[in-house]
Amino acid sequence: MLTYDMSDNGRPLYLQLYEYVKADIDAGRLLPDEKLPSKRTFAKNLGISIITVEKAYDQLMAEGYIYSRPKSGYYVSRLMLPVRESNLLDNRSYRINVPVQTQVDFDFSSNRTLVDDFPFSVWAKVMRETISLREKELLEVPPGGGVRELREAICSHLASFRGMTVNPDQIIVGAGTEYLYGLLIQLLGNDKIYCLENPGYPKIDQIYRSHEVEVAYAGLDDQGIRLDAIRDCNAQIAHISPTHHFPTGITMPISRRYELLSWAGEDKDRYIIEDDYDSEFRLKGRPLPPLFGIDEQEKVIYINTFSKSLTSTIRISYMVLPGHLADRFYKTLSFYSCTVSTFEQYTLSSFIRQGYFEKHINRMRLQFGRRRKKIIAMIRAKFTAEQCRILENDSGLHFLLEFTTDLSDQYVK
Amino acid sequence: MLTYDMSDNGRPLYLQLYEYVKADIDAGRLLPDEKLPSKRTFAKNLGISIITVEKAYDQLMAEGYIYSRPKSGYYVSRLMLPVRESNLLDNRSYRINVPVQTQVDFDFSSNRTLVDDFPFSVWAKVMRETISLREKELLEVPPGGGVRELREAICSHLASFRGMTVNPDQIIVGAGTEYLYGLLIQLLGNDKIYCLENPGYPKIDQIYRSHEVEVAYAGLDDQGIRLDAIRDCNAQIAHISPTHHFPTGITMPISRRYELLSWAGEDKDRYIIEDDYDSEFRLKGRPLPPLFGIDEQEKVIYINTFSKSLTSTIRISYMVLPGHLADRFYKTLSFYSCTVSTFEQYTLSSFIRQGYFEKHINRMRLQFGRRRKKIIAMIRAKFTAEQCRILENDSGLHFLLEFTTDLSDQYVK
Repeated sequence: MLTYDMSDNGRPLYLQLYEYVKADIDAGRLLPDEKLPSKRTFAKNLGISIITVEKAYDQLMAEGYIYSRPKSGYYVSRLMLPVRESNLLDNRSYRINVPVQTQVDFDFSSNRTLVDDFPFSVWAKVMRETISLREKELLEVPPGGGVRELREAICSHLASFRGMTVNPDQIIVGAGTEYLYGLLIQLLGNDKIYCLENPGYPKIDQIYRSHEVEVAYAGLDDQGIRLDAIRDCNAQIAHISPTHHFPTGITMPISRRYELLSWAGEDKDRYIIEDDYDSEFRLKGRPLPPLFGIDEQEKVIYINTFSKSLTSTIRISYMVLPGHLADRFYKTLSFYSCTVSTFEQYTLSSFIRQGYFEKHINRMRLQFGRRRKKIIAMIRAKFTAEQCRILENDSGLHFLLEFTTDLSDQYVK
Repeated sequence: MLTYDMSDNGRPLYLQLYEYVKADIDAGRLLPDEKLPSKRTFAKNLGISIITVEKAYDQLMAEGYIYSRPKSGYYVSRLMLPVRESNLLDNRSYRINVPVQTQVDFDFSSNRTLVDDFPFSVWAKVMRETISLREKELLEVPPGGGVRELREAICSHLASFRGMTVNPDQIIVGAGTEYLYGLLIQLLGNDKIYCLENPGYPKIDQIYRSHEVEVAYAGLDDQGIRLDAIRDCNAQIAHISPTHHFPTGITMPISRRYELLSWAGEDKDRYIIEDDYDSEFRLKGRPLPPLFGIDEQEKVIYINTFSKSLTSTIRISYMVLPGHLADRFYKTLSFYSCTVSTFEQYTLSSFIRQGYFEKHINRMRLQFGRRRKKIIAMIRAKFTAEQCRILENDSGLHFLLEFTTDLSDQYVK
């Protein structure tokens, strides 16, 4: 008869018994199909109640360590493999090479925002208000496209900043543009060829490749992506940033825009993804109207993000789909829950509606202009025009530097 | 000579001029390659400053409506298509069929949480504390796997609730399990066959299909998914919920678990995705230890979510990868930004560390038990045992009802 020391060590008796039996099975001291004591006998032997034994047996049964035969009793299960206690996993984990965030003197990375630039106290205030006043809405599951109120706020923003007339139903909110690209692949099909600008923003390429989608490249001339290059690669989808190309800063003129739209109109599967990532920060003149606004054939998908204009640690982006694609989205992809929490969607919505977003944009535009001037002045003071050429474009956040050097770009990187 | 009415209507003069010229080009009143007045003449003619004309011309140039020839002047561009002013888009949008959220008397949907169940005031308090005390951390870009502090909190939670020994580097935080499934497809490959439980949770099927991944089904017996069925469909990946199968409620016994692990061990491409979605809410006994805990071959990926245990309007889920897959994640997918904002990651982290999550789980377990009892009592009072059989399983939130009826399941649905 099994005998265990059921001392009062503060743990429930049934748990102690469960663990004793389990340990004996694990160690092979109790063998497959071996009969266990009846509940009554076991209880008497150990000086505990029948209910305690029953609870221990129930747990062992639920976990498959033992089984019962009607009117016969409890037996040890036949386990496929011996259960070995091990802490191997914890040691093995050290093989994980987590990328280290390097400290640099000059951080020119394009996907970060400066801590001081984010209007933290205003955002915190609006968030506090949201938590206090919106409890009910915060707990309501929003539609797949996002909280209605936020989408309406984005509509007004797009109307006044980008001259776009958009219905809130066309807007899909998601946790970052990277996530939205993934949705778009599902919406447009992973059997299409996606054409990117060369040179271009490397992450877009990584995302398409990671989805095992065929990627092609089209070169640029001084007006942006070349139409003949797009045609050459038989692409259906052109993923471009016409307002401000990264990294050259080229702004695509209106004639090239119409050529692109005309290309897209030639085939029903052709679409243009217009990445408008930093249009808010155009430094001179009014921002250019987006391709989306002159598209009359429902061929342009507009994408923009608040992670760039506010702070990269808030993950809110959105895309504007042409009518028939919005309809397709709700037909085929609306089983997806919106990836942004309602707490942040309502906070951003209030932030825009109360005018804070516009103020922030205006403040940042001045700020970026000053910073840019300062950096350029520093570079000019340090290098001669022969050593280093600055290729400026007024349309946004970045500019190109061309060094006369024998060093390879890999070395500098 | 072009003459426009430059009245003081409160709008900047350069903008008025820009719009006049643009409208004339759009309407064909100014023709391609037509020369525009020089800045000086135009300014004199309209009674405005040269700088104003220059600003208007700059904007028109930037947008490609006009071009300049050195030492000659400004000319109207040759546009591919006539620019037509239209508001068509707004009307077309009404063709979007947005799914309507229907009001029902009894909502048994499995992806919603009751508003009253969420500890709103505590969450709000922790969020307010987070905003006040953590400004610096909130604006720091976290690694792709998520905020370190949250991953550590999840580790302790997993250790005490699920007996799992896990390194924070193995944990990847994401905006919902749906998003994580998409990441897993990228990590494991979309050329694999993914095997699901039949019957099972329909959304998992939708997500795989939406990624155009091959899906196969394996039937169940009373121990859960059948090994012969998995083998029959040549699957590499088995996506299962061994702790509490949806919808049957089956808990996979230990012997079947070892059989599964042994199947996975036969080929290097085989993996098991363990969806542990409601293990916290097991109503009787201790929760079963997860498959992940007895896996010694790095074959099990563990997935769980806070959107189910807290509120579905907060989108935070996580997966625990075996060591070599975590390493692969950082090698191939770490270009992705974490999809959850730092505001919510730090709030959840404090919520867990201050013991609120554990309290909430315990309260909800009682609550769900009571609710379940009440519903079952109501059903028993209304139907005879012949009309309606209740298939109870103690392991979690749901149970099955079997009606004796001629109506099809489609009708009831």
